[in-house]
Amino acid sequence: MLMPKAKVAIVGATGFTGSELLRFLPSHPNIEIIAVTSESYKGQLTSDVHPFLSAHIDFPLVSANKIPGLKPDIVFLALPHGVSMDYVEKWHKEPFKIIDLSGDFRLDKASTYEEWYKKSHHFVEGFKDSAYGLPELHRERISRSNLIANPGCYPTVSILSLLPLLAHNNFDQASDIIIDAKSGVTGAGAKAKELNHYSNVNENFRAYGIKTHRHSIEIQQQLSEVADRTLSIQFTPHLLPVDRGILATCYIKNPKKITDVKLKSMYSEFYNNEPFVRLREQIPAIKDVRGTNFCDIHVTSDDRTGNIIAVGVIDNLIKGAAGQAIQNMNLVLGLEETAGLQHVALRP
Amino acid sequence: MLMPKAKVAIVGATGFTGSELLRFLPSHPNIEIIAVTSESYKGQLTSDVHPFLSAHIDFPLVSANKIPGLKPDIVFLALPHGVSMDYVEKWHKEPFKIIDLSGDFRLDKASTYEEWYKKSHHFVEGFKDSAYGLPELHRERISRSNLIANPGCYPTVSILSLLPLLAHNNFDQASDIIIDAKSGVTGAGAKAKELNHYSNVNENFRAYGIKTHRHSIEIQQQLSEVADRTLSIQFTPHLLPVDRGILATCYIKNPKKITDVKLKSMYSEFYNNEPFVRLREQIPAIKDVRGTNFCDIHVTSDDRTGNIIAVGVIDNLIKGAAGQAIQNMNLVLGLEETAGLQHVALRP
Amino acid sequence: MLMPKAKVAIVGATGFTGSELLRFLPSHPNIEIIAVTSESYKGQLTSDVHPFLSAHIDFPLVSANKIPGLKPDIVFLALPHGVSMDYVEKWHKEPFKIIDLSGDFRLDKASTYEEWYKKSHHFVEGFKDSAYGLPELHRERISRSNLIANPGCYPTVSILSLLPLLAHNNFDQASDIIIDAKSGVTGAGAKAKELNHYSNVNENFRAYGIKTHRHSIEIQQQLSEVADRTLSIQFTPHLLPVDRGILATCYIKNPKKITDVKLKSMYSEFYNNEPFVRLREQIPAIKDVRGTNFCDIHVTSDDRTGNIIAVGVIDNLIKGAAGQAIQNMNLVLGLEETAGLQHVALRP
Amino acid sequence: MLMPKAKVAIVGATGFTGSELLRFLPSHPNIEIIAVTSESYKGQLTSDVHPFLSAHIDFPLVSANKIPGLKPDIVFLALPHGVSMDYVEKWHKEPFKIIDLSGDFRLDKASTYEEWYKKSHHFVEGFKDSAYGLPELHRERISRSNLIANPGCYPTVSILSLLPLLAHNNFDQASDIIIDAKSGVTGAGAKAKELNHYSNVNENFRAYGIKTHRHSIEIQQQLSEVADRTLSIQFTPHLLPVDRGILATCYIKNPKKITDVKLKSMYSEFYNNEPFVRLREQIPAIKDVRGTNFCDIHVTSDDRTGNIIAVGVIDNLIKGAAGQAIQNMNLVLGLEETAGLQHVALRP
Repeated sequence: MLMPKAKVAIVGATGFTGSELLRFLPSHPNIEIIAVTSESYKGQLTSDVHPFLSAHIDFPLVSANKIPGLKPDIVFLALPHGVSMDYVEKWHKEPFKIIDLSGDFRLDKASTYEEWYKKSHHFVEGFKDSAYGLPELHRERISRSNLIANPGCYPTVSILSLLPLLAHNNFDQASDIIIDAKSGVTGAGAKAKELNHYSNVNENFRAYGIKTHRHSIEIQQQLSEVADRTLSIQFTPHLLPVDRGILATCYIKNPKKITDVKLKSMYSEFYNNEPFVRLREQIPAIKDVRGTNFCDIHVTSDDRTGNIIAVGVIDNLIKGAAGQAIQNMNLVLGLEETAGLQHVALRP
Repeated sequence: MLMPKAKVAIVGATGFTGSELLRFLPSHPNIEIIAVTSESYKGQLTSDVHPFLSAHIDFPLVSANKIPGLKPDIVFLALPHGVSMDYVEKWHKEPFKIIDLSGDFRLDKASTYEEWYKKSHHFVEGFKDSAYGLPELHRERISRSNLIANPGCYPTVSILSLLPLLAHNNFDQASDIIIDAKSGVTGAGAKAKELNHYSNVNENFRAYGIKTHRHSIEIQQQLSEVADRTLSIQFTPHLLPVDRGILATCYIKNPKKITDVKLKSMYSEFYNNEPFVRLREQIPAIKDVRGTNFCDIHVTSDDRTGNIIAVGVIDNLIKGAAGQAIQNMNLVLGLEETAGLQHVALRP
Repeated sequence: MLMPKAKVAIVGATGFTGSELLRFLPSHPNIEIIAVTSESYKGQLTSDVHPFLSAHIDFPLVSANKIPGLKPDIVFLALPHGVSMDYVEKWHKEPFKIIDLSGDFRLDKASTYEEWYKKSHHFVEGFKDSAYGLPELHRERISRSNLIANPGCYPTVSILSLLPLLAHNNFDQASDIIIDAKSGVTGAGAKAKELNHYSNVNENFRAYGIKTHRHSIEIQQQLSEVADRTLSIQFTPHLLPVDRGILATCYIKNPKKITDVKLKSMYSEFYNNEPFVRLREQIPAIKDVRGTNFCDIHVTSDDRTGNIIAVGVIDNLIKGAAGQAIQNMNLVLGLEETAGLQHVALRP
Repeated sequence: MLMPKAKVAIVGATGFTGSELLRFLPSHPNIEIIAVTSESYKGQLTSDVHPFLSAHIDFPLVSANKIPGLKPDIVFLALPHGVSMDYVEKWHKEPFKIIDLSGDFRLDKASTYEEWYKKSHHFVEGFKDSAYGLPELHRERISRSNLIANPGCYPTVSILSLLPLLAHNNFDQASDIIIDAKSGVTGAGAKAKELNHYSNVNENFRAYGIKTHRHSIEIQQQLSEVADRTLSIQFTPHLLPVDRGILATCYIKNPKKITDVKLKSMYSEFYNNEPFVRLREQIPAIKDVRGTNFCDIHVTSDDRTGNIIAVGVIDNLIKGAAGQAIQNMNLVLGLEETAGLQHVALRP
């Protein structure tokens, strides 16, 4: 029996996450794109804004106002923080489901948002209905929700790297976690600024947002909920001279001295059925997952120091953004979770 | 009606072109891979040699000697120059067709090969039967041939950039052509050597093989055949600090002062039905075609100097190697020419 | 006998050429910096704008208006095209000498400037007095001049690569020259724009300014003057994914079939006493000259095609800008030409 | 009064640390190079092996056996681990002083060396006489010693980033330290191997040597000695896609809740007179110190988590190798500590 294709709209097509949705969705077997929006480029074609897309697909860019009239099943919001909530507010009674790639509904409540995002939040009801869109953690809830808050890129890889530990009662005494994460430049957006001038990034490397990065609290809230106690997450991001990819090196004490073998089998059991998590004997590199929705993880314990070290890698624009959003869409629509996401890494 | 899938074998899976065939072929809708070979790694799995392939596909690596017994329809040879001819010689009476990605059968005759490759050639019959596998130039012949000599990476983009000019009688007086080409590092192979040590390539750029590069004669022979006179091709390759991509800047006199408009329409007509050639108003960049089988071309004439300048870009491992080999396979098997090759560029 | 140090001022310290002058001049043995200016950052220190300079030198940034009162001997203008001429006009009767790093006085006359720079020129007298600051070509004139037009980066390496040929009567029949040049990103300036966003440059390569780049006419004028006939220069620049460095590949017909040996000895004789030109048997790479004032050149003739190919490399910010400006200053002040410029390349 | 220049020999000129000594030493005002050795290239010139050095300096490469007869004052050993100890053994009664850039004498005793380096040590006396060559920690001892064990690159930046804390009695309870460090490729040496093939490094990032890297124990021994108790150092190195530079992000608990202001003033006091340590309000980037002997450090405390975070950067080939070796030579010879080391960072 042939299923009718689900109708999908993309709001905000000019940034990196928008163009990434446009790279992936046209070849998805179960959906059709019914609208792509841009307020600044409306009237032009997607191939005018992204010439590399020409000859594949092409969509006229329309205003987001047209969306409700087109009766989509799913609307992706690929918009900046603070702008997304306007659309969620305006559309929360519409019959379509929203997958929001911004940070506007990822945290537990408006006051936490305001503290870490330094912005006021004007649609607090959104927090009640939303699901945090990490399928490996909230698969059930996501499939029932009308508003999916697609996770941040750093939180995705950080949470997946530590999840089996914190879900396990062997670790009920470990509370101090250090996550030292390194991301490619696309995490900072497509707009030209001093920070992403080629000569400031190339042959360079720096930490940024020490103590203050918003993803600190996102990771802390999710992992604390899993562990059922308040964890303290020290999260430090760094800027890598690459386009794509995040590697997170995570450190936590090993209070009950679990052996390396046991540790690896805890992870294997936990991720046994996950299509997008690959446990690795070798330490993974970001290029192993470039262009894919995979999260590769290596975990080990150091008997000398009593620490456990977990290293995870993702493509920040895919498992850290657009790919995970499509994985969430698949869940919401009851499709095969891997549909449209079976890409092989671009190596070399 | 469901067609049975064609049986395909890959000889030499450890180099860049071999791993690129492994990235592409498993998702091709009309073929199945029946064998992947490696003499040095036989007994291991493809994912042992290429960890980024794990979770997608996996094949045991076997010796090439097993191939004939498996009755393949198509055999790809992803082997070094000088080694390919051994297999072509051994297998030329077998019922399968061979697509050879080396340079062993690209030139017109053994003596030219020996002059430019500084190697003796011991299977001269191969030259008679082989087709030069550039579909835009020899589509008919390819589809009938038992041995396809898949073109070099530089020749592919150079020939495609100049082909409409030399096929046109307006250019019967222009004979001096300069092709200044720049390639990513994967063109030099996967084996570690001083030349491709990171610190010799990164933040660096150099010309190499001035006057002597083997692709000079390959380009010259093909374009001279098209033009029906002996051309003089000055070809200079350079090494770019990128993984993938070639850009060729081609210069030729414009003796009959064809206008820019006419020039562009000559190109449009010539490439009208080609699925993998995109003519571009803007000057193309290598990232526009990264991960794809496209060749993007921009052409213009300079009234001040009387020159025509054509700039072409390809992904050297795809349109310049594995992708073109698959395009040739599609022709040989009578499949849709774009089957298994409809990838979108990885940008950013 | 101890000479008093010459007094030097730098106008415009925030761009790449300004900061490069600040990297070099403080360790110059015969000069002292008496003022560094910035209109936008006045009141701050040079180390506020360029933190990497802290602990070495530090200068308060002042307005350019203060310069004449400080009685400098030499004033460097590190300003954009079109802004420099304002200062030259205002200060052309002052007793100090001006070394202008912009393109405002490099061409032969205002009308040529206006045609190629698409800007009106309001100080035409400047053209009369100025010297084109390529010491290898105009050493005498530079040392006597009050206004030095420091050459463009592309013209420096292009002219030096071809100069011995065009100065020699064996080449009085060759008029068509093709210069295919490739530059690092710093050539496009320090200001953030879409063009120099990391993800547009990294893993990428493109041509730009085909037919229209201003350096075409600068090269053509200088080389035509040397050859004493009107040459036709086809100049194509490309953007390399590196910070610094230009490589120019230059092509010219070899009408009298000069041998490779003779060609190399022509170059050796011509550059015999030049402290900053190194002739190379191997093809040079841009990293060989990174951080230095050298221009490395390799030249060869191709008997098969009848072409001569010359490949030159420089650091675009040094021999292509600030270093050459200091070399010119040394000439103007009667100092050792290499004073303050004896740096070794940063390799790796 | 003119001092006679000290006589210096470099053993092992072909690797990265040897070529870096050759970049620096010829312009040092108080020494002269009397010999440069290479067993594999003897008879050639340094400029044959390192073409970028031509026109500056040139030395014939001789066998190391010639060194004692030339009566040097200082001998630098730029040799691999395990090879250095042969020369130290052979020469330890010679009148010259040895600065060893390998790891052979950095640890406290032979058994520790054998455990971490997986190599037997055959000159245990060396450990008694040697000084660990970190001037900021052992200045006095270095100046009196005949054998200087020049520190590892990672230990240099890690120790300097944490030293003021561990030297202070406010931190007598903190014992668990995490050092997450990231290095450019030159740290892995000049020899071509799979690991440093351009396509394995470029656009890539990975951790390596988790739990087992030799620099773990070097850092732990030095910091434990400073703290006067046994610390537990978790050290994780990563490979950055850049040529030069290390950034170390260091984490330690802040048990007595020292404020940010106090913390910064502790550091300021500690490093008050150090010529090569710069404390930074902004988070430093590796390009800020590229080409220099500086170590830039930023330190801050996070009240939310109770951690102190210190971020340090160095150029691994300079402060992490050749520059520090020259700084040690200056101490040994009683010269100005900054002599020959006053370079400005190559930015951009």
